[in-house]
Amino acid sequence: MSSIKMFEKPLGMRDTFPITYEKTEEVRQIGREFLRARGFDFIQTPSLEYFDTVGKASAIYDASLFKLVDSQGNTLVLRPDMTTPIARVATSKLLKEKIPLRLAYFANVFRAQQTEGGRPAEFGQMGIEIIGDGSVFADAEVIMTVIHLIQAFGIDSFKITIGHAGVLNCILKDYTESMEQAVALRTLLVERNYVGFEQAVESFNLPKTKSDALLQFISEATNFVTIQDIEKYVRKNDALEYMQQLVELIDAANLSEYVALDFTLSSHMNYYTGMLFEVFAEGSGFALGNGGRYDGLLHHFGTKVGATGFGIRVDRLLEVIPSKPTTSESIGVIFEEEALFIKALEMANSFREEGKRVTLQSRKGLVDENAFAKHFDQILYVSQEDLVE
Amino acid sequence: MSSIKMFEKPLGMRDTFPITYEKTEEVRQIGREFLRARGFDFIQTPSLEYFDTVGKASAIYDASLFKLVDSQGNTLVLRPDMTTPIARVATSKLLKEKIPLRLAYFANVFRAQQTEGGRPAEFGQMGIEIIGDGSVFADAEVIMTVIHLIQAFGIDSFKITIGHAGVLNCILKDYTESMEQAVALRTLLVERNYVGFEQAVESFNLPKTKSDALLQFISEATNFVTIQDIEKYVRKNDALEYMQQLVELIDAANLSEYVALDFTLSSHMNYYTGMLFEVFAEGSGFALGNGGRYDGLLHHFGTKVGATGFGIRVDRLLEVIPSKPTTSESIGVIFEEEALFIKALEMANSFREEGKRVTLQSRKGLVDENAFAKHFDQILYVSQEDLVE
Repeated sequence: MSSIKMFEKPLGMRDTFPITYEKTEEVRQIGREFLRARGFDFIQTPSLEYFDTVGKASAIYDASLFKLVDSQGNTLVLRPDMTTPIARVATSKLLKEKIPLRLAYFANVFRAQQTEGGRPAEFGQMGIEIIGDGSVFADAEVIMTVIHLIQAFGIDSFKITIGHAGVLNCILKDYTESMEQAVALRTLLVERNYVGFEQAVESFNLPKTKSDALLQFISEATNFVTIQDIEKYVRKNDALEYMQQLVELIDAANLSEYVALDFTLSSHMNYYTGMLFEVFAEGSGFALGNGGRYDGLLHHFGTKVGATGFGIRVDRLLEVIPSKPTTSESIGVIFEEEALFIKALEMANSFREEGKRVTLQSRKGLVDENAFAKHFDQILYVSQEDLVE
Repeated sequence: MSSIKMFEKPLGMRDTFPITYEKTEEVRQIGREFLRARGFDFIQTPSLEYFDTVGKASAIYDASLFKLVDSQGNTLVLRPDMTTPIARVATSKLLKEKIPLRLAYFANVFRAQQTEGGRPAEFGQMGIEIIGDGSVFADAEVIMTVIHLIQAFGIDSFKITIGHAGVLNCILKDYTESMEQAVALRTLLVERNYVGFEQAVESFNLPKTKSDALLQFISEATNFVTIQDIEKYVRKNDALEYMQQLVELIDAANLSEYVALDFTLSSHMNYYTGMLFEVFAEGSGFALGNGGRYDGLLHHFGTKVGATGFGIRVDRLLEVIPSKPTTSESIGVIFEEEALFIKALEMANSFREEGKRVTLQSRKGLVDENAFAKHFDQILYVSQEDLVE
């Protein structure tokens, strides 16, 4: 064990100071109002879940799980995502009441870090899940909702890239010679390692038609404009028709400008079975969020219904939200002694009624009055003269 | 290891369903607005802290701590309270900027349960800390703030019982014959075991004057009206004078009706050094919250400044907050097919602009239309005729 200094925090753990806290609360409130108006109900699940239920199903890498053992000897995990706990709640209880379910969350999730690399081990996620609707309209609703939600935060420059897990798997299978090769290529795509993808294709010694097709696919499939562009790689099937319908709905809603097709899009979460997407804001190196259809997860919990949703990372959202100047004026009211306490209190309360932030402070409690005063827009002293009225 | 069923949650872990979620959010918003107007800045600390820093200092019983080991071999704890992490943040960073600090929080804390006894292992706490002000005015501010905050939630029938750790320790020391006896009696008071207290006093074989005094103290000290009432047990000292001043300030603020004195009040948190109090709402068997002066904790973190604050349990608050009827009307807009999607979307958006909660649902995604419709105040169908305009 290394020696811990008094003020240290565990790897990847952060304190949130007032300015960031208030920005986060604003995001929480805007998101809550926006999603509730669209019929989504917010729920919260516990921070701790059993490893055997939610932990195993979550498809987050095992090394990223915070695990502990309870007094009964069961292994618990700090929830690594919200989709899996919500699938648990939905299948155990809520789906008996209402189908389809529209659920929303704003919660912290936990991913253990092995080194101090600047990545948070605990971060906020906001998202929705539509459970029990297998239609393309549910997927269209998810994409429309994420677009309008991001706009509600004042962000204008962003892009949703949409792919399809089934279409990609089909292509990788068709143009390789074994399941191992297909899985290896898929893993490289999850990591967005396109150079590694090309090297792997060459190392497989595939028939030239196949390797040429894969190399051409990787060079152009991140940037297709229409569904027809992918048809040279894969024969017409239900998945393509589904994607065609999805694109038409987004078009009808006048949101095409925010959407791009990327058929190389892949996820290490193997419960994604159909459409999947990522959200990128201009000026952010990382995806703001992601989502897609994950019927497989509900099947895992014993309920054969469809499910689709998205999750946005709150920390990354805060980085790209335009900053607003704080509005409410801060006033410090300083009083000398007990006799002036009530006068000062009345003064403070009347400013508070005007919407100002007022700190009431006795001079007895002050060590450095000048240093304290610097933190306020205005400082008022309550003196003996204020008592004469 | 016992066998875990698919939908089980760890001991004491709860899901929060929409109605409770919304009540909690309202509490969060009312509390945030109220406390910010009074000059408190909200911060958040990580869920996980080092056992050696925050865990050990927190004074929560070791068996109640959720512990885990990180990849470096350090023991971590899920924060069992918020006062200790805030003391860490204040002493390591914030106190360099502003003295006194007024901080607020709304956060979940974790206390492991050994049996399924209906007690939550994770629950929300809202509270404040004034750090760096050792004056009686800071304690008065804490008590006034908790009173007005509870009123802001619409709760009228409640009581704050105030005691003093120093006064109690003085009495227990004066009327026993050893430190062990004093500590044993204090422990019984922490558990509010007054019968046990009387039995212990009798078993000590103390001189009659001492045992009589202790028995009389326990029978009347929970219900003193003025500070003078305690003076027969303890000679006049700084602590009594401090309490006298505190009572006068509460009186001056016209809040005496909410306050009672209870000099048997004690805490297992041994960092409470001075005034301490509990908050009871009528109709709630448990304390809604508690607080007091805890200069000792800041000294532990190497900073010799005073600190005082309170924390309220959100789950218990929800039990006593008067329920309000939900206001916004919920509408389900059901459409048949792709051609009607845009019409339905326009209809939904116009209702949303009127402040209604509107769910847009394709008939294709519905399994049981009647069951679905029951969840809305109003159901609208978008038909072909709506297109003819």
